[in-house]
Amino acid sequence: MSLDPTRLAPMANAIRALSMDAVQAANSGHPGMPMGMADVAAVLWSKYLKFDPSTPDWADRDRFVLSAGHGSMLIYSLLHLSGYAHPTMEEIRNFRQLGSPCAGHPENFLLDGVECTTGPLGQGLAMAVGMAVAERHLNAEFGDDLVDHRTWVVAGDGCLMEGINHEAIGIAGHLKLRRMIVLWDDNRITIDGSTDLSTSEDIRARYDATGWHTVACDGHDPADIQRALDEALADERPSLVACRTVIGKGAPNKQGTSATHGAPLGAEEIAAAREELGWTAEPFEIPEAILADWHATGERGAKARGDWHARLAASDRKAEFERRMAGDLPAGEDAARAFAEWLGKDQKVATRKASELALEVLTPRLPEMVGGSADLTGSNNTKTKAMEPLTADNYGGRYVYYGIREFGMAAAMNGMALHGGVIPYGGTFLIFSDYCRNAVRLSALQQARVIYVFTHDSIGLGEDGPTHQPIEQVMSLRLIPNLNVYRPADVIETAECWNLALQTKGTPSVLALSRQNLPQLRHEGEMLSAKGAYRLRAAEAERKVVLIATGSEVQVACDVADALESQGIGADVVSMPCMELFEDQDEAYRRDLLPAGTLKVSIEAGSTLGWERYTGTDGLQIGLDRFGASAPAEELFAKFGFTAEAIVPKIRAKLGL
Amino acid sequence: MSLDPTRLAPMANAIRALSMDAVQAANSGHPGMPMGMADVAAVLWSKYLKFDPSTPDWADRDRFVLSAGHGSMLIYSLLHLSGYAHPTMEEIRNFRQLGSPCAGHPENFLLDGVECTTGPLGQGLAMAVGMAVAERHLNAEFGDDLVDHRTWVVAGDGCLMEGINHEAIGIAGHLKLRRMIVLWDDNRITIDGSTDLSTSEDIRARYDATGWHTVACDGHDPADIQRALDEALADERPSLVACRTVIGKGAPNKQGTSATHGAPLGAEEIAAAREELGWTAEPFEIPEAILADWHATGERGAKARGDWHARLAASDRKAEFERRMAGDLPAGEDAARAFAEWLGKDQKVATRKASELALEVLTPRLPEMVGGSADLTGSNNTKTKAMEPLTADNYGGRYVYYGIREFGMAAAMNGMALHGGVIPYGGTFLIFSDYCRNAVRLSALQQARVIYVFTHDSIGLGEDGPTHQPIEQVMSLRLIPNLNVYRPADVIETAECWNLALQTKGTPSVLALSRQNLPQLRHEGEMLSAKGAYRLRAAEAERKVVLIATGSEVQVACDVADALESQGIGADVVSMPCMELFEDQDEAYRRDLLPAGTLKVSIEAGSTLGWERYTGTDGLQIGLDRFGASAPAEELFAKFGFTAEAIVPKIRAKLGL
Repeated sequence: MSLDPTRLAPMANAIRALSMDAVQAANSGHPGMPMGMADVAAVLWSKYLKFDPSTPDWADRDRFVLSAGHGSMLIYSLLHLSGYAHPTMEEIRNFRQLGSPCAGHPENFLLDGVECTTGPLGQGLAMAVGMAVAERHLNAEFGDDLVDHRTWVVAGDGCLMEGINHEAIGIAGHLKLRRMIVLWDDNRITIDGSTDLSTSEDIRARYDATGWHTVACDGHDPADIQRALDEALADERPSLVACRTVIGKGAPNKQGTSATHGAPLGAEEIAAAREELGWTAEPFEIPEAILADWHATGERGAKARGDWHARLAASDRKAEFERRMAGDLPAGEDAARAFAEWLGKDQKVATRKASELALEVLTPRLPEMVGGSADLTGSNNTKTKAMEPLTADNYGGRYVYYGIREFGMAAAMNGMALHGGVIPYGGTFLIFSDYCRNAVRLSALQQARVIYVFTHDSIGLGEDGPTHQPIEQVMSLRLIPNLNVYRPADVIETAECWNLALQTKGTPSVLALSRQNLPQLRHEGEMLSAKGAYRLRAAEAERKVVLIATGSEVQVACDVADALESQGIGADVVSMPCMELFEDQDEAYRRDLLPAGTLKVSIEAGSTLGWERYTGTDGLQIGLDRFGASAPAEELFAKFGFTAEAIVPKIRAKLGL
Repeated sequence: MSLDPTRLAPMANAIRALSMDAVQAANSGHPGMPMGMADVAAVLWSKYLKFDPSTPDWADRDRFVLSAGHGSMLIYSLLHLSGYAHPTMEEIRNFRQLGSPCAGHPENFLLDGVECTTGPLGQGLAMAVGMAVAERHLNAEFGDDLVDHRTWVVAGDGCLMEGINHEAIGIAGHLKLRRMIVLWDDNRITIDGSTDLSTSEDIRARYDATGWHTVACDGHDPADIQRALDEALADERPSLVACRTVIGKGAPNKQGTSATHGAPLGAEEIAAAREELGWTAEPFEIPEAILADWHATGERGAKARGDWHARLAASDRKAEFERRMAGDLPAGEDAARAFAEWLGKDQKVATRKASELALEVLTPRLPEMVGGSADLTGSNNTKTKAMEPLTADNYGGRYVYYGIREFGMAAAMNGMALHGGVIPYGGTFLIFSDYCRNAVRLSALQQARVIYVFTHDSIGLGEDGPTHQPIEQVMSLRLIPNLNVYRPADVIETAECWNLALQTKGTPSVLALSRQNLPQLRHEGEMLSAKGAYRLRAAEAERKVVLIATGSEVQVACDVADALESQGIGADVVSMPCMELFEDQDEAYRRDLLPAGTLKVSIEAGSTLGWERYTGTDGLQIGLDRFGASAPAEELFAKFGFTAEAIVPKIRAKLGL
C-alpha cells in the first residue's frame, strides 16, 4: 500500500488507544513506548515487513523482534490489528491477566508472531543477531528462492546501554549482517528520568565504529521514517535507524516524560489523549476504516507467501528444508549407535575431548549443527574438521568465532534456534556461564534447543585458580527450570549426553565437561544416561553404601568403592550425569537406585547444597563449599578431599566403624 | 628518574625473563601479555605510577589494575622488582603452585599491590571505574591534600570485547573520570588467533563516542609511550591509550602469535628469546644494576608518601579519614537500636519500602554509604533524602545513577569497596542478578563489603511475568561462597538485615526484597535475624509441624500455622532470613529450632532443591520449580499454591491425617 500520512496517523493512533486502554485496564504496564513508536511501527508494517498473518510460521517471513519487551502492547496491537488469529480483542482486554497470551512481556510460546521472549533488556537485539546469522546461513545453503528475509528490531535506550548490545553489534558488524535493521526508539527517557542522568554517549558514532550504518529520522513523520528505512535497506552494513520520538506521544500532559514509561496514564490523561489524538472510538474498539487499513498490511504478504510456497514445492531441497525448519533430526538417525563401538575401546580423554570426538561423528551427519566458541576454540574443543568458519565471506560456514562475548554468543544461539533450521552449540568455560546466565535461562523459558558446551568444569582445571574454578555453577544451573544439565563421567557418557541434548527439541542443554583426562568407566550397556542416573557398579560385598557421583568424581567414587569393598563394605556406584532426567524416572527406578537402609554419599567437586535430596540429611555430601585455589589439579583434589583416602574414613565414621 | 631507554630496555627484559621462566617452571600460564606490555609497564612504573612499596596500604597511592588478569606475571614481576615485600623470588618460582601468593590470576587477598582480583575479563576495567569514582568522591569530601590519585588499568582485547566494558566506559565517560587511564594492550591477538577472526571494531572511535580521550603509541618505544601518557594526563576526559604491541615480544619465533598467549614458550624458544633480548642471567636471577633501577622506581614515591602522612597528621579530618578507610562504622554506632522503636509500630510495607525506611535512618548517620540503582531508583527504593546525585559536577554526591548497566554497577561497587572509604550499595531487580552474577561472585571472592539491593524477589512482582519473576535466583545466590543472602519477612527483619550487612566487613550481602506489601510480623525481640533463623511463633497445640519460611512466605507460614492450630495440630513458624548465618549457629541451637520428630515444611516461592537440608527428604518442600506467569500477585500465589488452603491439606496428608 502507499504511505498516505492521513491514513497512517489513525493507524498509529489505534496502537496508542489500545496500548493506553489495555494498560489502564490492567492497572499496570508500559504505555510510553508503544505510543512513542506507533508511527514507526505503522510505516514498517505497511510497507516493509514481509509477513502473512494467515501463515505465521512461514519460514521466509521477516523476523520482528521487540527488544524493548516492556512495550509489549506495541506487538500485541500490531498482531491483532494486522489480522493474526491471536491475540483477540478479548485477550488484549485481559492484558497481564492470568491465562491471557498478552503477558506483561511478550512470550514466544504464547503467541505466533512473537519471535522471541523479550523483557530482559538487550537480549532481543542480541537474539536478532542470531536470527540474522541463521538467515544468511540458510540462504547460503538453500538459496534466495527459499531464504531471503530480514530481521527487524525495535530497541530502546535500555537495550543500547546493556553490555550485551556491545557484544551483539560487534558480532553483527563483523559478520556484515546487512539484512538486520535496528529501529532505536530514541526518546531520551529512561525509568529514572532523562538519559542525561546516566549517559553521555554518542550512540550513532559507537555503531559507526562497530561496522554499522546509521541514519536518523523524525519518528513521528512517516515520510522521514520511509526515507531512513530506504537508506538503511540500501546500505551494505547492518543498520541502526535512530527514530527520534516522544515517549507517550499523544498524552498531552505526560508525553516526553518518564511518567509514561511504566505506569497507567490514568483516566484523566487518557481522556485528554483521546482529545489530542481525535480518537473517539470506545475503548477496545477500532473504527472500521482504520481496521481495514490495518488488515491490508497483513494481506500485503499473501502473494509473496504464495509464490514462496510454489517455489518450495518445486524445489528439490523441499524435504531437507522442511526437515531442518521442523527441527527434526535426519530420518533413521540414531547417533547413539554411532558410538556403540566406543564401548569396546578404552579411551582415557578429558570429557571436553570426548565431546570433540562425538562432534567429529555428529557434525558431518547433522548439517544443521552450527558450532562456535567465545574465543576458546582450542580449549572447548568445539570445532570439527567438517566445519569451516562462518564469516562475512562465507555464510555457509558452520563455525562461528564469537569472540570474547559469552552473553552475546548465548543470546545469538537463542536467536538461531528460534529462527529454526539450525541447531546451535557454543562453548566457553563453565565459570563464564555466569556471564551469560540470563540467556541460558531464556533458552529454557523459550524452549529453545541450544546446547552449551561448558568446559573446565571444576577445580580440576587446576592452576588458573578460583576466578576460573566453578564451585556453585553446576548446581545453580540445575536450578533453572527446563534446562538439562549434563555432567558426563567419561567418553561414553559424553557421547550419550550429546545424543540426548540433540533429541530434546524443547529443552536446552548444558554439557559440563572436564579439562582433565578421565578414564573410560563403561564398556557395556546402551544409552544409560537417558535415565539421568544409573548403577555403574553394583556392590560385591553386602551393600551398605551407595555412592552417587557426577563427571570427574565418578572415578573417585569407583576408587572409594574399591577401598570399601576391600574392607568388606559393599558399595554401589551410581553415576548421575543428569539430575533432571533422573527426576523424570518413576519411583520404582529411583528407589531401586537409591534404596532405603543404605548410607548414601554424594561426591561432586562443587556446592553440596541440594545433594541432600538424594543422600538424605543422614547421608554424606562430599563437595566444596568454598572457593578453590591455584595449583595443579591433582594437588587440589587431594587438598580438598576428593580422594578415596579422604572419603573412606568419613564413610566408616558415618557407619560407626 | 629519567626515562633513559638504554636502562628501560633491560628493566622491561627483566619482566620478560621472569614471566617466561615462571610460566615454564609452572608448565602453565600466559607469557605473551607480560612480554608484550613490559615496556609500557616499565615506563609507567618509572615515571608515572604513585606508589611506595614500603607502605602498600598508603591510602593516596595510585591504583594499578591488571584487568587482563591472565597476564599475572606482569604484576608479580612489577611488585617483586620494585621492592614490595611480596612476592619474593621464591614465591615467583612457585608461580601457580599450592601456597604461593602468585596464583594463576592475581588475587587481592593474597598480595599487597594487587588492588583487585582479575581474570574474568572486563571486570578489572569496570572495577577500576569504581575506584576512580571513590577517589573523586573522597577527594570532594577530604580535599586534594588527602585524596589525589589516579587509577591505571592494563586491559587486553578480551576486556574490550566483553559487554561489561561498554557499561563501564559509559559510566566513566559520563562521570568524566579524567584520572582514569586505560592502557590497552593492542596486540591484535586473542586465544583463537587474530582479532580479525571475530571483530572489525574501531575501538578508539568507540571510546571517543563514549566521552573518552584516546591516543595511540608504539608500545615498545619508551619515548612514544611517554608522549601518549603525557597527552592522556593533560586531557579532561578519561583516557584510552592504545599501546600497539607485539604479544610475546622477545620470543623470536613465536612473538606476534597466539602461541605465546596461554602456554609456556618451551625451553628452546626461551633460549632463543634470551639471545634475542641479550639476557644472560640465570632463571630467576636479576642482574644487580637492573634491580637497582627497578628499586629506584619503588623509592620514587617515598617522599610523596611521607609528605602525605604529614598532611594527614596535621588534618582535622584525620580520625574520620582513617575511620572510613579502615571501613569501621562510626564509634558508638549501633544502627540496630535506631529501629527498636519500630517494634512498637505496625507497619505494613513492602520490604523494598522497609529498606528505604531503614536507609533513611542509616544514610545520614553513615556518610560513607554511597547508593545507586541500575535505572530502577523508584522501584528499588534506594535513594534517600540525604543523598544528592553523584555527578561529574558534584562528586560529593552520594547517589549514582548507574543507568541500565547491572554488571557495570556491580563491578563498580566492587571497585569502590576495594578502594576503601565508602560502603557501596546498589539496586536492581533480583532477576537481573543474573546479569551481574559474576561480579557478585567477585564481591564474595574478594571479601568486599558490597550490598546488593535486589527487589521484586519472586512471583510476588506479578504482572511483569516469567522474564521478571525470580525462581532460582535466591537459592542460586546462596550457593556462592562467602555471600550472605538475606530475605527478610517484614519491616523489622529488613532493618536487622541492613544492620548485619553493614557489619560484615569481609562479606558482601544480598538483600532480596519484595515488591508487594507485607504485614509486620515482629513486635518484640532484639536482632533475631543475626542467628539466620529463629522461632517467630511457637506451637500452641502439641508441636507436630515446623514451618520454615523466608521473606514474603513467612506470612503464608503464619496463615498455615493458624489453620493447623485451629485443627489441633501444633506448628512452629521459623523465619529464616539468612541461611548462611543459620549455618554458623551451634548444633544445639539448630536442633532446638528444627527438632527431630516433627514434620518440617519449607515454604519459599522459588526453587525447592536445597531445602531438603532443613526439611529432610521426609519433609515437605513447598516452592516453585517452574517458570512463573503474568498476572496479579495474589492470583499467582493462589495459582502456585502459596496459600494456607493449598498447603494445609498437603501437611495433613503427610501427617497421615
